[in-house]
Amino acid sequence: MDLSADSPTVGVVGGGQLGRMLAEAGSPLGVQLVVSDPTPDCPANHVAREQLVGAFDDGDTLRALAERADVLTYEIELADPDALDAVSEQTGTPVHPAPDTLRTIQDKLVQNETFAEAGLPLPAFRRVDDADDLRAAGEELGWPVMVKARTGGYDGRGNVPVDSPDEAETALAEIGADDGGAVAEELVEFERELAVIGARGSDETATFPVTETVQREEILRESLSPARTDEGTRERARAVARSVLDELDGRGVFGIELFEREQEGGPNEILLNEVAPRPHNSGHWSIEGCVTSQFEQHVRAVVGLPLGSTRRRGPTASANVLGEVAEPTRARLTGVDEALAATDAHLHWYGKREVRPLRKMGHVTAVGESEPPLSAVREAVETLGFAADRNGEEGRSR
Amino acid sequence: MDLSADSPTVGVVGGGQLGRMLAEAGSPLGVQLVVSDPTPDCPANHVAREQLVGAFDDGDTLRALAERADVLTYEIELADPDALDAVSEQTGTPVHPAPDTLRTIQDKLVQNETFAEAGLPLPAFRRVDDADDLRAAGEELGWPVMVKARTGGYDGRGNVPVDSPDEAETALAEIGADDGGAVAEELVEFERELAVIGARGSDETATFPVTETVQREEILRESLSPARTDEGTRERARAVARSVLDELDGRGVFGIELFEREQEGGPNEILLNEVAPRPHNSGHWSIEGCVTSQFEQHVRAVVGLPLGSTRRRGPTASANVLGEVAEPTRARLTGVDEALAATDAHLHWYGKREVRPLRKMGHVTAVGESEPPLSAVREAVETLGFAADRNGEEGRSR
Repeated sequence: MDLSADSPTVGVVGGGQLGRMLAEAGSPLGVQLVVSDPTPDCPANHVAREQLVGAFDDGDTLRALAERADVLTYEIELADPDALDAVSEQTGTPVHPAPDTLRTIQDKLVQNETFAEAGLPLPAFRRVDDADDLRAAGEELGWPVMVKARTGGYDGRGNVPVDSPDEAETALAEIGADDGGAVAEELVEFERELAVIGARGSDETATFPVTETVQREEILRESLSPARTDEGTRERARAVARSVLDELDGRGVFGIELFEREQEGGPNEILLNEVAPRPHNSGHWSIEGCVTSQFEQHVRAVVGLPLGSTRRRGPTASANVLGEVAEPTRARLTGVDEALAATDAHLHWYGKREVRPLRKMGHVTAVGESEPPLSAVREAVETLGFAADRNGEEGRSR
Repeated sequence: MDLSADSPTVGVVGGGQLGRMLAEAGSPLGVQLVVSDPTPDCPANHVAREQLVGAFDDGDTLRALAERADVLTYEIELADPDALDAVSEQTGTPVHPAPDTLRTIQDKLVQNETFAEAGLPLPAFRRVDDADDLRAAGEELGWPVMVKARTGGYDGRGNVPVDSPDEAETALAEIGADDGGAVAEELVEFERELAVIGARGSDETATFPVTETVQREEILRESLSPARTDEGTRERARAVARSVLDELDGRGVFGIELFEREQEGGPNEILLNEVAPRPHNSGHWSIEGCVTSQFEQHVRAVVGLPLGSTRRRGPTASANVLGEVAEPTRARLTGVDEALAATDAHLHWYGKREVRPLRKMGHVTAVGESEPPLSAVREAVETLGFAADRNGEEGRSR
């Protein structure tokens, strides 16, 4: 592939922080982004060449995106595989990863079935169309079970644990499963959660070093690499990730979430939890922590450049800056000077206008010498905060 | 300083590759750039929030820039200190580094006098107003001498060595010294050229690890850090850089170019060559090679954030991708796949529309384990090339 002043251009469905970090990673390579997002002035807008304002599945917006781009991709599962297939056929602009892969992953039941058929280790699961199904699944898998909406879940929304048959109706209502059914899964008592970013290029695949992820309230809080487990377990996690990549079509990076579970009389077991067909929060540490970041890798993959080295530069820790507010407020991050002065943490601020409770507003990363500097990123995150700024007045107007 | 969705904003005079890399470095910190440049669609344009098209010294353009920004800076010495002072007074927007510092540095004679008065080690120099002065300087300093236009020099333009008194008139004409005079300097027979990026923050300074630079035809080709000299020499180079920082006003990073010269019976001597009041080509390696890059450091400094760690992540080499063409042509970089597949080199492509002989079109950087991986960056640069594409037709139109 040759580079010129404005080619290649990647059209991205979604312009949140993932789109923003894709644009930051593409710029040094001369790869430009055009993004589509329903929210005007989305986080990616200021770094991307252009934002088209439109719904993720709006045909006209997608067509305009495809006409400006050499290749289409998406940074959000709410992208519409049928609409992407249609616009690709109309315009000849390829889509990566393949819309079929998005289709498989979007439906949690189909995703589980696909990977189970491929022989991958998964938690036991059952299809759930109504409360009776859920009660039967609980009897079979053992209470409590985890019930997940088949479609539309994100950041833990659409997932709830169910303790007993009495809660079946409430749980299904809570996850909004009326639209497309649900899947019940054995609730895994894991030793820790792991994640691997995998990448598919033109004729090669690559996996990033294994990450340990720490979630609370089903939202990722911290990532560490190397994961604090044994080398054999990390190697098995990477092997599962490689097998996942073999089942997917098209180019791009994938966030592969795993459980590590103790096994009596044997090494810890790896179970596949979920796959995201895009860069993933568990890989943000790779921006500073690896020779090639997950974002640069995604850009390279979708435009057809060779994949880069996934070597880790050093033990790395990352922590999310979440909205610590009681209600939505104009976002103003405080404590920046103190956080940057006290630690070597790198700050990534996503530039969102509004902070909401537990909204992902940014993250910090630090690379250490002998182990992931978790205390440094925790200190940085604890030093950062949000100003109470209800009236939305900025210090200066323009 | 607090961060919000579109603040702080830095207004940058100049939108070349330095502006582009400043925008790339500012984005993760939530710092946006607005740039002014006379060339529409300049390299920084696609990453900055906005480009204003106008001459570097145009008052209206500067005023519009200041009105959009929380702080003004410049990435080119052709910025006009008087115009910057005026617009700063009109709008209240501060300028960093201080216009006075730019004024001092812009005039090579004033720059030399300032640093000489401060006791810094410099090559011997003389003021040259006409050919007679130049001949007298040659007699005094010894032929050959280096003659430099006092103002307007850049990338070796405006500098020529003069071998004998006969060449005095031609040399002064060649450097275009008619406008503002010249300075003659002892031609230093250096062991190697070194450079240090220095930074001035709000109440702190920092220096980056010493770089060895390799120039041909007075254009920087390669940078290596650590410089291939002894630790004592590197420490003396950093000490000179710290003394230079003490003589300057305002915040920002400075490219400090040095000569290392053998000294009979003593350690090698450090001489100050030139200072640039902005990020410098000799510091591009810091993007991958240091915890904080020179571009992030400049952004932090001018907006008033604490300076970041200048620790080197590993031995690093960088090489420029220069226009290897006989005449100006629409730019199309070839060999990208091969260069990226063969090495771990990071490619930075500046997105210039036109390639010209020896124009800086991009650079590559690689970080090694035990020494700067010079062969890897050379291999990458040799693999890259420019397509003969005289008609300016692109493969796809939009």
